[in-house]
Amino acid sequence: MISEKKGAILILSGPSGCGKSTLLKEVYKEIDDYYFSISTTTRAPRVGEQNGVDYFFVSKEEFEEDIKNDGFLEYAKVHDNYYGTSLKPIMKALKEGKLVIFDIDVQGHEIVRKKLDSIVTSVFITTPNLNILKDRLTSRDTDSSEIIEKRIKNAKTEVEYFDTYDYLIINDNLELAAKQLVSIANITRIKAKLFDKEKIVSNWLN
Amino acid sequence: MISEKKGAILILSGPSGCGKSTLLKEVYKEIDDYYFSISTTTRAPRVGEQNGVDYFFVSKEEFEEDIKNDGFLEYAKVHDNYYGTSLKPIMKALKEGKLVIFDIDVQGHEIVRKKLDSIVTSVFITTPNLNILKDRLTSRDTDSSEIIEKRIKNAKTEVEYFDTYDYLIINDNLELAAKQLVSIANITRIKAKLFDKEKIVSNWLN
Repeated sequence: MISEKKGAILILSGPSGCGKSTLLKEVYKEIDDYYFSISTTTRAPRVGEQNGVDYFFVSKEEFEEDIKNDGFLEYAKVHDNYYGTSLKPIMKALKEGKLVIFDIDVQGHEIVRKKLDSIVTSVFITTPNLNILKDRLTSRDTDSSEIIEKRIKNAKTEVEYFDTYDYLIINDNLELAAKQLVSIANITRIKAKLFDKEKIVSNWLN
Repeated sequence: MISEKKGAILILSGPSGCGKSTLLKEVYKEIDDYYFSISTTTRAPRVGEQNGVDYFFVSKEEFEEDIKNDGFLEYAKVHDNYYGTSLKPIMKALKEGKLVIFDIDVQGHEIVRKKLDSIVTSVFITTPNLNILKDRLTSRDTDSSEIIEKRIKNAKTEVEYFDTYDYLIINDNLELAAKQLVSIANITRIKAKLFDKEKIVSNWLN
């Protein structure tokens, strides 16, 4: 277990189309000292993609060097490209006392829980039902029907894992769901375990 | 363990003078389906005290009968009077899906955690330091100096236990502290464990 108790981690999971990015924008309005975890990849940047915003783009050699140095929370090779979550920026943000936000799948959630001994609050976000998810995915018109099919298949599997999370947000009403997520993000910062007990007690008594 | 998974429990602890009652009023403005746990006692009501508001007032015989029937979460005999927390109204409120709120000390917190297998969120509320607590207790002019001394002694012991709670609220700024407590109260209602998994999954897929 890698231990860093100063900052805290907020994990969001849920199918594409559940409204995660929209809800996250509301969190960013309320919180300024957060770090949103970005994946590292060896694939080439697509048009418009920026290093440090969309991904950390690195060479295959750098990536493999980092694998050797236990530099990844997790990684995978997809086709001929690596994708992974680098530990360094996460540990840096935690040391700075930031709220580290992950948008990851149920497997990623499990890995973070297992490998990081930090304060973790996790939220599973979902649409009220599968049909609404299908509607949202088809109406936003950004994905091919093949990708939509894959997302729906994943969603069906992932919903079974909602009870491994701390909170469930059923995103039926955007305003309410945003209020819930902002509350969770704020409250994650006052988890009793985050405070230095000796310091709190000695400050309190003197 | 007594199990009731529908409702949820919110435990508040912290020294008298930390602002708990003021903060709770803000929670009541936001939440309507709560049940505030009231103690049961055999002592006579004082002027202005109401049955079912300040305490449940019962006879010594009734109280001892309830002890025999395991009707108390905890109880104590102080001088010649019994004081206790009756299980019946708590279990009823949980069955109705309510948020059951306890204002109890660190020992009470431990007992609830041990005996009730419900969703429990606990919050330790404190003043920024002991001097501010002393000021608040003396300026509100409701207690004798003997009682104030006792409260301060208790506070010094209890602060050591803040890390056995889920959250710590340092009530330095009433508005901020109220916002934090209201968030915790709201969020306690969407703990993933509160949802009926089978129902959620089957509703979701159909």
